[in-house]
Amino acid sequence: MGFFITFEGPDGSGKTSASMGVYNKLLEKGYDVIYTREPGGIEISEQIRDIILDPKNTEMDFRTEALLYAASRRQHLIEKILPALKNNKIVICDRFVDSSLAYQGYARKLGINQVYKINQFAIENNLPDKTLFLNIDAKTALDRIQNRENKDRLDQEALSFHNDVFDGYQEVIKIFKDRIIIIDASKTEEEVIESCFNEVIKIING
Amino acid sequence: MGFFITFEGPDGSGKTSASMGVYNKLLEKGYDVIYTREPGGIEISEQIRDIILDPKNTEMDFRTEALLYAASRRQHLIEKILPALKNNKIVICDRFVDSSLAYQGYARKLGINQVYKINQFAIENNLPDKTLFLNIDAKTALDRIQNRENKDRLDQEALSFHNDVFDGYQEVIKIFKDRIIIIDASKTEEEVIESCFNEVIKIING
Repeated sequence: MGFFITFEGPDGSGKTSASMGVYNKLLEKGYDVIYTREPGGIEISEQIRDIILDPKNTEMDFRTEALLYAASRRQHLIEKILPALKNNKIVICDRFVDSSLAYQGYARKLGINQVYKINQFAIENNLPDKTLFLNIDAKTALDRIQNRENKDRLDQEALSFHNDVFDGYQEVIKIFKDRIIIIDASKTEEEVIESCFNEVIKIING
Repeated sequence: MGFFITFEGPDGSGKTSASMGVYNKLLEKGYDVIYTREPGGIEISEQIRDIILDPKNTEMDFRTEALLYAASRRQHLIEKILPALKNNKIVICDRFVDSSLAYQGYARKLGINQVYKINQFAIENNLPDKTLFLNIDAKTALDRIQNRENKDRLDQEALSFHNDVFDGYQEVIKIFKDRIIIIDASKTEEEVIESCFNEVIKIING
């Protein structure tokens, strides 16, 4: 079996550039590694994602959304992640179950435990071996988002949701403290990639 | 609040003609009643159903399927059933959570308890007030299906699945014996509608 490593963090934490940076470094060093994120090019998961993101679907209930994320995750796991692990690959995955716990469970107020239960049905104990959490304060993350996007996008509702996601992740870290490694994401992109890479090498070398 | 009444039974039990028959009789008598079945014309639920039924999706995992049914059910409940109940209507619904327990939980071997948990997340205790179960032996149901459809459609795999659904419903009845009313579905269509209608009137009159 390979290694299943996920990257988590709120928007603006630099999660995507860090996970891709680590993936590229592993490739360079000759490791057998794949990079993925939901829906991961899996046809069924793509179809589910289209429903979640369809701007017409304004009536979507938060519980419907959480069930759809779990369904998409299940299929991505079965068709892509588990086969890669079986072939002894390292799987670097940008977001997984912890995102649902922080976003749907905490920020959407469905309850972390409740959302975890439906995700347990979906993943059947296939939690990541380790999760790198890109830790940053809400203010710095917000500045980053506002630098890269139209400031108008973040209204009051979005701001309060942004803060709830931060608090949600802190709850998730408490629950899974043995699995989640906290990375200081306030440093430069290069430094963050380096820290993450070092952690991943430690995981792989047991 | 109105009354939420579901009809359940395996293929060939006459569930659909019985539920529509009861609906029509209630209408005739002047009751404020709606008839529905998932996805019930709800746009998001229709989109989910399209994924489940898409013949291209041969890779669909049974757990993905169960989560999609739960998601579709949630949205149908929120957008159609609960608003109708709030307006004091009688809601006659062809299939609901018990179908998932018998089909996905038992026949697909995911476990009735497991499938019930994700459905509980979806319905949040909004179980039907009463459920009419159209009881028939597997052999008679099979004869009915074979009379209405191409016999070739039922291969060995389908036959064994058909029998598992029957056994699954018997398990579901044991769990929810206070909610589920057993109707003898071996009689003529007219007699079955009459029995169901009498039960529904008893429910409405408390």
